[in-house]
Amino acid sequence: MHYKYDKIGAMLKSKDKTYIPEGFLFSVGEAAIKKPGRKDITLIYSETEANIAGAFTTNRVKAAPVKLAMKKITSGRGQAIIVNSGNANACTGRKGIKDAAETASLTAKSLKINPSLVYVCSTGVIGTPMPMEKIKAAIPALTANLGRLSLRDAASAIMTTDTFPKVISKKVQIRNRTGTIAGICKGAGMIAPNMATMLCFILTDIAVEKRTLSKALKDSVRKSFNRITIDGDMSTNDTALIMANGMLGNSEIKENSASYKIFKNALDEITYELSRLIVKDGEGATKLITIEVKGAADEKEAEKAAFAVANSNLVKTAVYGNDSNWGRIMAALGYSGINLNEEKTAIHLGNIKVVNKGTGTGKDAEANNYLKNNSEVSILINLNKGAASAKVLTCDLTEEYVRVNAEYRT
Amino acid sequence: MHYKYDKIGAMLKSKDKTYIPEGFLFSVGEAAIKKPGRKDITLIYSETEANIAGAFTTNRVKAAPVKLAMKKITSGRGQAIIVNSGNANACTGRKGIKDAAETASLTAKSLKINPSLVYVCSTGVIGTPMPMEKIKAAIPALTANLGRLSLRDAASAIMTTDTFPKVISKKVQIRNRTGTIAGICKGAGMIAPNMATMLCFILTDIAVEKRTLSKALKDSVRKSFNRITIDGDMSTNDTALIMANGMLGNSEIKENSASYKIFKNALDEITYELSRLIVKDGEGATKLITIEVKGAADEKEAEKAAFAVANSNLVKTAVYGNDSNWGRIMAALGYSGINLNEEKTAIHLGNIKVVNKGTGTGKDAEANNYLKNNSEVSILINLNKGAASAKVLTCDLTEEYVRVNAEYRT
Repeated sequence: MHYKYDKIGAMLKSKDKTYIPEGFLFSVGEAAIKKPGRKDITLIYSETEANIAGAFTTNRVKAAPVKLAMKKITSGRGQAIIVNSGNANACTGRKGIKDAAETASLTAKSLKINPSLVYVCSTGVIGTPMPMEKIKAAIPALTANLGRLSLRDAASAIMTTDTFPKVISKKVQIRNRTGTIAGICKGAGMIAPNMATMLCFILTDIAVEKRTLSKALKDSVRKSFNRITIDGDMSTNDTALIMANGMLGNSEIKENSASYKIFKNALDEITYELSRLIVKDGEGATKLITIEVKGAADEKEAEKAAFAVANSNLVKTAVYGNDSNWGRIMAALGYSGINLNEEKTAIHLGNIKVVNKGTGTGKDAEANNYLKNNSEVSILINLNKGAASAKVLTCDLTEEYVRVNAEYRT
Repeated sequence: MHYKYDKIGAMLKSKDKTYIPEGFLFSVGEAAIKKPGRKDITLIYSETEANIAGAFTTNRVKAAPVKLAMKKITSGRGQAIIVNSGNANACTGRKGIKDAAETASLTAKSLKINPSLVYVCSTGVIGTPMPMEKIKAAIPALTANLGRLSLRDAASAIMTTDTFPKVISKKVQIRNRTGTIAGICKGAGMIAPNMATMLCFILTDIAVEKRTLSKALKDSVRKSFNRITIDGDMSTNDTALIMANGMLGNSEIKENSASYKIFKNALDEITYELSRLIVKDGEGATKLITIEVKGAADEKEAEKAAFAVANSNLVKTAVYGNDSNWGRIMAALGYSGINLNEEKTAIHLGNIKVVNKGTGTGKDAEANNYLKNNSEVSILINLNKGAASAKVLTCDLTEEYVRVNAEYRT
């Protein structure tokens, strides 16, 4: 791929038809962090200071840039995000913190803004010191080349083992103005109970008050990125940031504003759709699996049951093999830790009821066909205990997953 | 393989050199439960009534024979165990319970003993009704052919996806008499936090008091079968039974007996060695991985940390790929739920210290070689917080695991 960096507008109407919110500029570069010849560094910049909010990994081992960002985000203000792939800057001790801080300050200097407004995000191998000379060398060109790049190109540059860039955008009517909200993310392996080696950047020109923005993002993430899993592992670097630069000129949306719901719905759609794309692109995945648990006593129980099924290697390999082996689903429910009532449990694969009152209905052949003929499959579990439900997305487990992850560093 | 069923003694000194405790007879048969042409049913019989104790799956979905055995075992008495592979008799509703009870009573009738003394164990596919006609047809030959079969042959007949039979036996000096303790088991996939689709039968001619036997087994299982994991899944059928028929003629061992420790040590060796064999034979496994966590605040914390690492698909694929990707180990520790102090953590692969104070030591190439040159590898984690430790055994995750489990029913 080759990128044109002509300033403002030239790629605005690129083929991919994503909408770019007003006032955001991008650039991508090659810093040869892990190896040369690939886009591995990205700069996202708002022409004006913006409100910003974030959600971060709950892993106790947090990468240096995550630690830094968690401090900065308390101000609620930001203007630039610099993102690299190829190195996670995690488990890198004090040097790692110093390196992340230096990356922010060098970027700030080059952009002529306050370092407190620059956020650093890293993804890649853990435990290798950041090649700071390469980062330093890349920054001047990144700021010089900022432009209205296609979002797809920006999304491409943050990919690691992703096989396609993940972009989604929406037009949102806020009173008499039409705002834009757009998101890009990277995912692939290690997507787990609480997000993933997932980096997600949501950008909007709609003005949203700081605390409202933070609350909206957290709630949205809870039902999207926190309900996906590829392999049960959880990354040290997961970060979702949202920047709202207010360039639409609307009066700042607060929680009690009439427009709040409209904005929140759009945000929910963006995060759900992005999390769906992450799972669809799970390492080696051939099938997207939606696991919905209904009839639970409460939402927490539903989520717990759904995650046990979603993280079961045996369920995931069965789906891969087009084998409606619902016994493995029952077993996963049984060890999930919920108070399962075996005799009440029902399971559907697609529209086919394979389990009724805890035993098989004899429709396995039909269900095998359903699995065989669909790349997006659903497992619906009814616990028949209460009224709560939760939906978790995952993918199948394949030889290719093993191959990708056994060869990741070699 | 072909089996000779000559009565008493003929195969006692068979090539495999396992010792068979006094008074135990075995037979194996072909019931064609899943498919014809393989040994899929086994009878273990003690010539006298024995004390018996058991440990069972903690999965809330329990197979019918498990439910039945858990009731019977409260009597502490038993004389026969009938074991089938090919069908788990789980998620089979009331019919399942009825079938398991009928299997016990038919076996008892054929052996001319009380049905309360017969235990049924099943392993195989979940959710398919037991082919009772086939079971019924197989029982008469099983009892007729009881003999001093090699333990290896008995272990072979309970295999499902196991690639080798698992047998271990020991001579134990109890005062002036030499007793025998022997164990057989089957394992392979689905070996999880609490046992596995693991069936384990331990037989001894040493006289052990009922409650003492139960206590000894539970403690022994806690540190062996409950500390192994293949894929994090937990079966509906896990059962470990120990029968002590007292034919050695020693005075019954109680907890305060001088011989208790000797007996318990032998039992611990048997269960640890069997659990090690199960992991070594994990589906598709090429490497046995010992994960030891030291320096924990308490044993529970050590166990939790070790299991998070043992169940990480990313750690398991890295080991498979001979990649000393310790960042994945750090990440797993970070999401394990323990109160990790990243800056204190040290990790060894074999004798090579790859992490000191939470960061890399630069010995990755050396560690890669260690992984490459060993089929049994150790990961030693020091949390440097306290004095407690725990050891968990697991195996690597390979394409073959996926293949086996994607094709299990087809």
